[in-house]
Amino acid sequence: MTRFKRITLIGRNRTKGAMETVTQLRDYLMAYPEDLSISLEEETAVTIEENNLPTVKRDDLGLNSDLVIVVGGDGSLLSTARAVTEHDVPVLGINRGRLGFLTDIHPAELQNKIGDVLNGEYREEERFLLHTEIERDNKIQANNDALNEVVLYAGDVARMIEFEVYIDDQFVYTQRSDGLIIATPTGSTAYALSGGGPIVHPALNSMVIVPMFPHNLTSRPIVISSDSTISIKLTPNTKMYPGVSCDGQAPILMSPGDKVRIRKKAEKLRLIHPLDYNYYEVLRSKLQWGGKIESQANN
Amino acid sequence: MTRFKRITLIGRNRTKGAMETVTQLRDYLMAYPEDLSISLEEETAVTIEENNLPTVKRDDLGLNSDLVIVVGGDGSLLSTARAVTEHDVPVLGINRGRLGFLTDIHPAELQNKIGDVLNGEYREEERFLLHTEIERDNKIQANNDALNEVVLYAGDVARMIEFEVYIDDQFVYTQRSDGLIIATPTGSTAYALSGGGPIVHPALNSMVIVPMFPHNLTSRPIVISSDSTISIKLTPNTKMYPGVSCDGQAPILMSPGDKVRIRKKAEKLRLIHPLDYNYYEVLRSKLQWGGKIESQANN
Amino acid sequence: MTRFKRITLIGRNRTKGAMETVTQLRDYLMAYPEDLSISLEEETAVTIEENNLPTVKRDDLGLNSDLVIVVGGDGSLLSTARAVTEHDVPVLGINRGRLGFLTDIHPAELQNKIGDVLNGEYREEERFLLHTEIERDNKIQANNDALNEVVLYAGDVARMIEFEVYIDDQFVYTQRSDGLIIATPTGSTAYALSGGGPIVHPALNSMVIVPMFPHNLTSRPIVISSDSTISIKLTPNTKMYPGVSCDGQAPILMSPGDKVRIRKKAEKLRLIHPLDYNYYEVLRSKLQWGGKIESQANN
Amino acid sequence: MTRFKRITLIGRNRTKGAMETVTQLRDYLMAYPEDLSISLEEETAVTIEENNLPTVKRDDLGLNSDLVIVVGGDGSLLSTARAVTEHDVPVLGINRGRLGFLTDIHPAELQNKIGDVLNGEYREEERFLLHTEIERDNKIQANNDALNEVVLYAGDVARMIEFEVYIDDQFVYTQRSDGLIIATPTGSTAYALSGGGPIVHPALNSMVIVPMFPHNLTSRPIVISSDSTISIKLTPNTKMYPGVSCDGQAPILMSPGDKVRIRKKAEKLRLIHPLDYNYYEVLRSKLQWGGKIESQANN
Repeated sequence: MTRFKRITLIGRNRTKGAMETVTQLRDYLMAYPEDLSISLEEETAVTIEENNLPTVKRDDLGLNSDLVIVVGGDGSLLSTARAVTEHDVPVLGINRGRLGFLTDIHPAELQNKIGDVLNGEYREEERFLLHTEIERDNKIQANNDALNEVVLYAGDVARMIEFEVYIDDQFVYTQRSDGLIIATPTGSTAYALSGGGPIVHPALNSMVIVPMFPHNLTSRPIVISSDSTISIKLTPNTKMYPGVSCDGQAPILMSPGDKVRIRKKAEKLRLIHPLDYNYYEVLRSKLQWGGKIESQANN
Repeated sequence: MTRFKRITLIGRNRTKGAMETVTQLRDYLMAYPEDLSISLEEETAVTIEENNLPTVKRDDLGLNSDLVIVVGGDGSLLSTARAVTEHDVPVLGINRGRLGFLTDIHPAELQNKIGDVLNGEYREEERFLLHTEIERDNKIQANNDALNEVVLYAGDVARMIEFEVYIDDQFVYTQRSDGLIIATPTGSTAYALSGGGPIVHPALNSMVIVPMFPHNLTSRPIVISSDSTISIKLTPNTKMYPGVSCDGQAPILMSPGDKVRIRKKAEKLRLIHPLDYNYYEVLRSKLQWGGKIESQANN
Repeated sequence: MTRFKRITLIGRNRTKGAMETVTQLRDYLMAYPEDLSISLEEETAVTIEENNLPTVKRDDLGLNSDLVIVVGGDGSLLSTARAVTEHDVPVLGINRGRLGFLTDIHPAELQNKIGDVLNGEYREEERFLLHTEIERDNKIQANNDALNEVVLYAGDVARMIEFEVYIDDQFVYTQRSDGLIIATPTGSTAYALSGGGPIVHPALNSMVIVPMFPHNLTSRPIVISSDSTISIKLTPNTKMYPGVSCDGQAPILMSPGDKVRIRKKAEKLRLIHPLDYNYYEVLRSKLQWGGKIESQANN
Repeated sequence: MTRFKRITLIGRNRTKGAMETVTQLRDYLMAYPEDLSISLEEETAVTIEENNLPTVKRDDLGLNSDLVIVVGGDGSLLSTARAVTEHDVPVLGINRGRLGFLTDIHPAELQNKIGDVLNGEYREEERFLLHTEIERDNKIQANNDALNEVVLYAGDVARMIEFEVYIDDQFVYTQRSDGLIIATPTGSTAYALSGGGPIVHPALNSMVIVPMFPHNLTSRPIVISSDSTISIKLTPNTKMYPGVSCDGQAPILMSPGDKVRIRKKAEKLRLIHPLDYNYYEVLRSKLQWGGKIESQANN
């Protein structure tokens, strides 16, 4: 008997293809030999024809569910992850066409792979998120979570920002730059990679700090423990109003003298993979790295 | 007899030090054995004590002048350059404390160096600017000049921009990134350098295109002829409103479907250097490169 | 009537595919309606069956020829270019399977494209080479040419080399690193690109200096005029025996106190392209840059 | 009472300054109020005047010692570390003039700092080393240790090497490049940093793989767990004889088909720091990062 009795489906990307996959998935689950309780995320439900399944609000996604299945790209999984993590519900991602780092089941193999997962043949992996707080006059003004990265940025190219960085209350440096990316291992293959950061294996308890267009040419990406707390202080005297964005969402705006504090969130994302999932294979495919020499020779 | 009879002084940076240097410079020029006609930029004049010299509006800086002397940093020289270039008047830069790439006379050596320049002992160098036009529905909406660089940027980290780049009407690529820097050789040691661009010798008739956080990891800086025209087209269907900024000034905002066209401006900046000016020495000093081996051994 | 009456074929890469293409090319040329004089490079001739064409030594490749056609990769064209340039004979490259930066005719379109070229429908482009001299005690010890790049390198990872760089007798810096790459625009898309150098458009009269693993983190690629002369001086006191390699050939070994002098070679390579050759298209294809947005949408 | 009763001094760098510091250190220790047993590394002893202390061979450095003090640069500490680690003896580094990442006591503060350390006021930090084995025909041909990094490199610029990389027996990629750096956190601020690798905090249980001039432009540094085993396989068919160098020592030469296996060494280096040691301060000083904004304002 499967342990995933209550399953919620969400397909954030409203392309025709995504909706077809959601429908196909629903039909497969409803025909499943065991009795499953299937629900649909509210906005997803609207796009599916002939549907009379119960619906769930986005914020309640993980409430009465044993498994959430996301159909879409990595971006879809990111937003679902932030909604679901606090409810301790595992998430499974089905990509639409292009392989993602987080959505690693292809629609063509949907039935086999989902069948395996329901059958208990899967791997569960923990991914940590970053919790960010903006502090003004010793009070927390705003907070947010990120599975990929937190970005502090000027927003205005004309005004390079200046800030001090502290790690576990130890002063690291004052930086003048366009901003700073703090990425999880999960996010190390996303925006941080474009900024020159390293790839960090998802099993590592680390995060990476990547300076964005630093004025000082010796500034480099730094990898530190994800048990550390990063604090960023804007200078009180300079008129700068940078933004802080989590996973590319609309930014929280800061004021002179504000602080950002970034640390690992206590709750983890539980990510489900098929048993044949292989991180290096995904990397190789996405970054078009060279395959085995022997198989090259055969071409 | 000096060829620089009419001299205008400008000190944009209103720090105490800058104003002292402007005063010192004025006094030196007024005591000069030949009869010089000295004027002060309007806003600079306000900050100087006991001043009854004629003043000039910023926009008229080059109108009745044989030489404009800027006291400040590279930023001060940039804005003066944009104002003066069309009047074909040479510019000389005096830095305040820190050596600049463009302001290469130190206040301490002001009298000797200015004396030499008035005496005809100087080197004149041409630097080209970029002229930028924003086009909408085949009409030019806005235009601006840059001595350092033109930057097309999203402004909003959450919305990576997508655009096509053409050089001399040849399609180069579609890029998804935070934006694009197009720098002159003069600007190659400024913002473009932070973005991973190469240093381009100022005598070259070249410009450099530097992608900003490109999604495609094989995007690289490209150096092309400054006689080429660069066109950037925003996709018509995507809701993106990026900005175009010249030398870090307030951006011109674009709309879906707009085009940017960037080409060399016909008029050049005439930059005056002391005879002992040496480009590589400035680079070495600013970037803290290693000096001669023999002199290292002596330390 | 074609201006290429005397044509020499060379296929350095002795794979089966390359030899098939050489054979096919020979057959096509021998059946050409006009009377052509076809010859084969000596070593290429050996690999072709039923061949009784006149043969030419590699060093004499350009001697009695109006056109040299190379079948192979960019590496094959490099070595031919060095042999042919002094004889002022144009070169045309046919790649084997994978598009090259220099060999831009695909075997499948061989007959059409070669026909066009013989018909006068082609574009001739000049590419400059670098001439390198090693000097010891004011005497030239050795010299060589490079179409792509000259590399000064330690050869031994344990011994970082130290040297002074001069451009037109002006001191630039002392560098401690694994070595230095000096690349032509042609070579800017080869080894120098792996080392972080920019892409330099082939029409530019420029060369690029790329430091290899520099100890000083502010060392950056520099683009200078190809009319400049670069001199590199090894320190006389340090026991270092680095090598100087042109286009990846076996290195010339240096001794403490030696100098390398690098300047543009007077004779240029004359490179023949089909009329539809497009540099940016080659870049886009080789570096997998994004195509036009509209055609992406159609996929 | 101090726990460091038996102290061995080594000063590998035979400059006058280093020897003065060793002498000064010896005098200080001999005059120490408690009874200490001082010995000198054999080759160091030769360079010290009026010396009748017992001497120790380099290979026995850690044998009968409670503490080894190294006078010199980071290079001196590296070689001492490799010799001492198996004997489980802590090491303390005194730099000569220039601050090192590993040698963090300045000669000018020698007496105070050493006094503190003998007094028990110090911090002990563990740094792991990499153990490298070269395997041919399933037999181990050679092995070595590295505190900073293991480098696999072609040695010959003309012959790019090609190899497969495996992490914990999972295939990662085939790479064509000049070589590969595998660095510890300790080594992340050394050679790997010049190659574009990130800074990795020394407390992390991680290592970083940095490709050297990779042919594939999407190759990037990867940070993985230091509990992983890295295997590198040379292709059996290609004639390549690359070298494997540990901490820049003379390389072990490889043959076609050979394997390198790299894993964490069981024994750790015990590194002693003064109590006021601060990793970020060392980084900031060595890389010339910006200090606190307030103190900048005071300048």
